[in-house]
Amino acid sequence: MTKRKLIVGVMGPGNGCHEPIAVAARQLGKLIAQQGWHLLTGGRDTGVMDAASQGAKEAGGLVIGILPGKNSSVSDAVDIAIVTELGSARNNINVLTSDFVVSCGMGTGTSSEVSLALKAGRSVIMLHAGASSIAFYKELAPDLVMVAESPEEVVKLILNSLNQRH
Amino acid sequence: MTKRKLIVGVMGPGNGCHEPIAVAARQLGKLIAQQGWHLLTGGRDTGVMDAASQGAKEAGGLVIGILPGKNSSVSDAVDIAIVTELGSARNNINVLTSDFVVSCGMGTGTSSEVSLALKAGRSVIMLHAGASSIAFYKELAPDLVMVAESPEEVVKLILNSLNQRH
Amino acid sequence: MTKRKLIVGVMGPGNGCHEPIAVAARQLGKLIAQQGWHLLTGGRDTGVMDAASQGAKEAGGLVIGILPGKNSSVSDAVDIAIVTELGSARNNINVLTSDFVVSCGMGTGTSSEVSLALKAGRSVIMLHAGASSIAFYKELAPDLVMVAESPEEVVKLILNSLNQRH
Amino acid sequence: MTKRKLIVGVMGPGNGCHEPIAVAARQLGKLIAQQGWHLLTGGRDTGVMDAASQGAKEAGGLVIGILPGKNSSVSDAVDIAIVTELGSARNNINVLTSDFVVSCGMGTGTSSEVSLALKAGRSVIMLHAGASSIAFYKELAPDLVMVAESPEEVVKLILNSLNQRH
Repeated sequence: MTKRKLIVGVMGPGNGCHEPIAVAARQLGKLIAQQGWHLLTGGRDTGVMDAASQGAKEAGGLVIGILPGKNSSVSDAVDIAIVTELGSARNNINVLTSDFVVSCGMGTGTSSEVSLALKAGRSVIMLHAGASSIAFYKELAPDLVMVAESPEEVVKLILNSLNQRH
Repeated sequence: MTKRKLIVGVMGPGNGCHEPIAVAARQLGKLIAQQGWHLLTGGRDTGVMDAASQGAKEAGGLVIGILPGKNSSVSDAVDIAIVTELGSARNNINVLTSDFVVSCGMGTGTSSEVSLALKAGRSVIMLHAGASSIAFYKELAPDLVMVAESPEEVVKLILNSLNQRH
Repeated sequence: MTKRKLIVGVMGPGNGCHEPIAVAARQLGKLIAQQGWHLLTGGRDTGVMDAASQGAKEAGGLVIGILPGKNSSVSDAVDIAIVTELGSARNNINVLTSDFVVSCGMGTGTSSEVSLALKAGRSVIMLHAGASSIAFYKELAPDLVMVAESPEEVVKLILNSLNQRH
Repeated sequence: MTKRKLIVGVMGPGNGCHEPIAVAARQLGKLIAQQGWHLLTGGRDTGVMDAASQGAKEAGGLVIGILPGKNSSVSDAVDIAIVTELGSARNNINVLTSDFVVSCGMGTGTSSEVSLALKAGRSVIMLHAGASSIAFYKELAPDLVMVAESPEEVVKLILNSLNQRH
């Protein structure tokens, strides 16, 4: 029997992504790949999606990109490009396909992914989230939301959760 | 040429919807219908969806329900049942189809609808929202988020927005 | 309890729709409206979608259009425009939402709708279908596929089916 | 720059899949993997989906499964399980994500995938298709439809198409 590898989804702003957030996303992608996990992103060649994908790629990981449109530009670090033609409805696929969802930075699209993840009962780890988003989501789903201070802590939180499940 | 009627989407918790929120949703449905607007909900026979639909129905309005599944139970106050088989991805249709989105109460599904609405540039009016959700969404999209204290104020805010557009 | 009105979906080519097919679609829309049924189409302002919508509108019917994109052009005869942002995946909504599916003419999009309708167990009535499409679909789903020679026969077949159900 | 691997989608009946079709699907999966291509299927543990996935897995290939529901059973030969919660609307993702679409056997779901593939301009190779389906699809999209007599011929047709593109 195949035991499928863990998929960690990293969600964050595409356009207008600030440098420290892109740096964190790249590091996160790298750490995820180093754990032997698959990285999942929204697949485009911009912002957190691209940065995380590049990081994972450099570390030899496998990158799954869930693209919103038929003609979306794709990060060249994506290995498996899933073409959805669903616009923002593809965000639900992003989170359902991920065993863990990490938000890196925050925006309207990212918050839709955090909310859809929580709706589906997925654990969410928030990185580079503002105080108001943490307060809101912690109140909305206290059992599913975790906050990390660094990419390294994200990985530690995932490992802890996996240990608790076993 | 047909001038299509305004569609106001009312989004809110299905299961576990508290009584004051259901009362507000019902009143909101009624007021929307009295303006001659169409009401859109998630279509099911529970919580805010059902309450708003009943209110609109009683006032002679037309109710559009966007159902998540093929076998979803439908509020008997829904006139037009759109069957999507999309699960939570149907939330994006709810907000794209609505000219204005009103959240009544808050939950993980509702917050996904608020976020998707803002992502798509739709105005959102929050009713019976907690302080943390207001703080978060106001910060996330200050130009699109409005807060109402009552169903009557929701209608007033929509009318004001329509006047500003013309 | 509300008894929702019957929804008849009319599917057919958008671009490159031949005149006799557009004429049949318009007549079909009119007859559907005269029965007091709702018409559902793919919503755009072209081909069978537009012709059927115009016919229903002229006869005072209510027209539901399920639009593929956020910026799709809409037939001005559509009363309720459902905005999906799903591309061709919206075709599944078209057929799931229709109590009966009528194909008028044939093309790749139309055949996807016929196939999805049959997959979902919906009855399909084929009008202006070529011999090869009739032979294929009759073999694929003999119990669900009917062939009509005219818009009037489509209505007769629906009425017969409704009588058999009751 | 990453050059993504070719993805070949194999579509066919799930339940009620006849033995010769399952045998062909398994062989097809194996040959696809031996070419170094990725296999894409509908992901479930039944019929053509499972047989093709098993064949590719045995040959060391990578298998992408696009699942219709959150709780769909997954073939244990799937490496990357994409969870869509879209029901039959996921069929559009199957074909958009595939560089080539192969139908193996025929049914209502399979025909929806062939039609959606043609709608999106994808080449389709039909294997174990009946005469009526070949006649229909050849007429519908003569430039995109190819017919193969064996899994080996499917691979040959793909290789020929790739050579013509370069």
